[in-house]
Amino acid sequence: MTVVNGALAYLGAHRQDLLEELIELARIPSISTLPEYQAEIARAAEFVAAKMRRLGLEQVEIMPTAGHPVVYGEWLHAPDKPTVLIYGHYDVQPADPVEEWTSPPFEPTVRGDDVYARGVSDMKGQVLAFLNALELTFRANGTPNANIKVIVEGEEEIGSPSLEGFLRQNREKLACTFSLNADGGMARPGLPAIIYGLRGLAHFDLWIQGPDHDLHSGVYGGVVQNPAQVLCELIAGMHDADGRVTLPGFYDSVRTLSGQERAELARFPYSEAEMRTEAGNPPALWGEKGYTPLERVGARPTLEVNGLGSGFTGAGSKTIIPSRALAKLSMRLIPHQDPDMVETQLREYLAENAPSTITWNLTRSASTGGVLTGRDSPAVRAMQAALQTVFGVAPIFQLEGGTIPVVGQVCQVLGADSVITGFGLPDDNLHAPNEKFSISNYICGIETYIRFLANL
Amino acid sequence: MTVVNGALAYLGAHRQDLLEELIELARIPSISTLPEYQAEIARAAEFVAAKMRRLGLEQVEIMPTAGHPVVYGEWLHAPDKPTVLIYGHYDVQPADPVEEWTSPPFEPTVRGDDVYARGVSDMKGQVLAFLNALELTFRANGTPNANIKVIVEGEEEIGSPSLEGFLRQNREKLACTFSLNADGGMARPGLPAIIYGLRGLAHFDLWIQGPDHDLHSGVYGGVVQNPAQVLCELIAGMHDADGRVTLPGFYDSVRTLSGQERAELARFPYSEAEMRTEAGNPPALWGEKGYTPLERVGARPTLEVNGLGSGFTGAGSKTIIPSRALAKLSMRLIPHQDPDMVETQLREYLAENAPSTITWNLTRSASTGGVLTGRDSPAVRAMQAALQTVFGVAPIFQLEGGTIPVVGQVCQVLGADSVITGFGLPDDNLHAPNEKFSISNYICGIETYIRFLANL
Repeated sequence: MTVVNGALAYLGAHRQDLLEELIELARIPSISTLPEYQAEIARAAEFVAAKMRRLGLEQVEIMPTAGHPVVYGEWLHAPDKPTVLIYGHYDVQPADPVEEWTSPPFEPTVRGDDVYARGVSDMKGQVLAFLNALELTFRANGTPNANIKVIVEGEEEIGSPSLEGFLRQNREKLACTFSLNADGGMARPGLPAIIYGLRGLAHFDLWIQGPDHDLHSGVYGGVVQNPAQVLCELIAGMHDADGRVTLPGFYDSVRTLSGQERAELARFPYSEAEMRTEAGNPPALWGEKGYTPLERVGARPTLEVNGLGSGFTGAGSKTIIPSRALAKLSMRLIPHQDPDMVETQLREYLAENAPSTITWNLTRSASTGGVLTGRDSPAVRAMQAALQTVFGVAPIFQLEGGTIPVVGQVCQVLGADSVITGFGLPDDNLHAPNEKFSISNYICGIETYIRFLANL
Repeated sequence: MTVVNGALAYLGAHRQDLLEELIELARIPSISTLPEYQAEIARAAEFVAAKMRRLGLEQVEIMPTAGHPVVYGEWLHAPDKPTVLIYGHYDVQPADPVEEWTSPPFEPTVRGDDVYARGVSDMKGQVLAFLNALELTFRANGTPNANIKVIVEGEEEIGSPSLEGFLRQNREKLACTFSLNADGGMARPGLPAIIYGLRGLAHFDLWIQGPDHDLHSGVYGGVVQNPAQVLCELIAGMHDADGRVTLPGFYDSVRTLSGQERAELARFPYSEAEMRTEAGNPPALWGEKGYTPLERVGARPTLEVNGLGSGFTGAGSKTIIPSRALAKLSMRLIPHQDPDMVETQLREYLAENAPSTITWNLTRSASTGGVLTGRDSPAVRAMQAALQTVFGVAPIFQLEGGTIPVVGQVCQVLGADSVITGFGLPDDNLHAPNEKFSISNYICGIETYIRFLANL
């Protein structure tokens, strides 16, 4: 373990330099959602490319896509060893509302153990953690125990619209044994996590059309059925009293949790009161009977109304029967549910339940299947051991309720599972004012990746 | 009947002059909904006041209100005779969409038997019909068989917000035996109608509040109940499968139709196909079981969703659990339902059915009870006889699904029933492009009011 020890010695001696480097990158407002930050996006990509070249990656390139570029680098001198594709992103969310920041979002400021800046946790700190793990390994005259390919994209905060095309166009160049996705996070301070399941997502627009124009509710109230009322009835019928989705066959292909998984999830330090606070203080929590809140979020599918629009919603009154009504619906999907399958189920439900007084129209937009990665691959075991060593506690295996499209894309296009972890904390204020990243976690993250590269 | 004959002789000889006068008034764009037409509102009020003075009304005055003024005039020289308060309005709807008009909305144009202009049927033609009936009666050296008070207001198209206050402030000046509301219409060409019932109206805003901010549907889908879904469930539960409103006690005080009334309503020339076309071609009609469409519109209460608003309804997707959801609801009320009563019923329903995962808030805005006027008062009989003579057919007694707030206000504040009639046709395009008024109906209207004043 001389390489690891050498790398860790360097790490211990250069904390301040490594922090300064993070502060420098976090100064660049590489906001991908706003077109006026195009030049800053380019600066951040160049910063990452320069770092890759400096640390010893080869073939470093800022590769164009349909949108913002992907920075690529590789080190392929471990024949007969696996190849890991490390994923990160250099773009950040906007800083609004700027007035709620204690220090300016793009003037990184250290307070206590935290550095405050937009993008520092999501995910510039995480990107530098794995790049520095590579750098320190090389500095200690070592080499990773695997071939390395790194992609750092610039569109994650806008939903990675160009990434799938990029993966397809560079399928051979990016071929890998597995992928390391560094965009996860820790369960709690001191408690690392490996995410092994992500929910998928299917979006729908459901339109209910009645008369071809809004009607006077005095003249026609009682003879024409109200499309907004029909929409409400259809949506109301999509759940039963136990909080289960009623679409025909909806749960047929949903995988069941094993006893071991339920035990793992029960390890997660969590209280209902805390979850209620984090969830914006609804009067009470809610959900499908027979499952704990964490099981419901991680391992059960849901159907949500994301928006309702019909008729008049301004101040005062307008006594109409609206001509039509819209619901934006989305479903979080569990392996092995398929977006096509749930669309068929939704259509069947509508065909069966929609009254003959209206017509309906359903369209689906971008959707992603759920993802379940292997839990005992060599890559996962290498990460598990590294985390255990650094934090002194076994990492939690976590099922995440959200969707990281790149994980599904890497799986579909490159045929590779992802190991998903990270060193951000639940209260790092991602996408919110006063985003922060723990300096200790940054250092622990570098150490974890150093050990991971050695463990492989 | 020499006075009537004299008046009718003048009417026959001066059709063109009477039409020119209507065209002149219809040229004034007295749009009450748009503040930039304030000066035109004033011009229209002056036109009406000048006409009242010219025809022989006394104490003519443009009386200020909290909003646009009311034009008042009187003739009180029939001691021991009843006093009739004649109601009309000089304001009009906006002309949008202007590009759909065949001739400009404020350049009145005659095509065939119709004159086209905004406000010509609703209700400048109707106002001039009763003012000219008075004028021609005086010209024939006659006098009405009643004391006359006339009010012509300027805010009907914005819901008459200042009228109730005006009536209260001038309760003695406006004291009357009954009121003639000339803002009704005919059932069909050649078939006059007297409206004896109007539905009331109560408006509500219903807010459902869940978490205090929108939530990520991946992170919280499955543990926080969706306020938009709760709103849909509550609205869905407000009707049963027979189209009846389920609020507790909702029908308890609704008066039942007599056999005679049902027979009268069945006289109305109407077909389902025709109604469906007029109603913007919904795939099918709908409504409460056990009643004909006309009975449902005229004599049964309804509960309508006027608008729904929640979360994200733009293009694309935003996978949130919305923090809150709004429904704009309104109910059409039947005598003897009371707005306070139905509000209590709605609150009871919500208290019983809203889940503990959300909070709800209900507010009521302006509301009006339903109105039922006597069907065999001397005033109604005088109008019935006049219409029968002019059109050669017994007028239909009609229950109107809409609400004319002034009728309820006159009843409550002045204690007077209204006789409601008019000479517009169902296809006059009220509130729509190409509003028109039949010149024959204008002339027949003048004749009807001449005979009505004599019949009293």
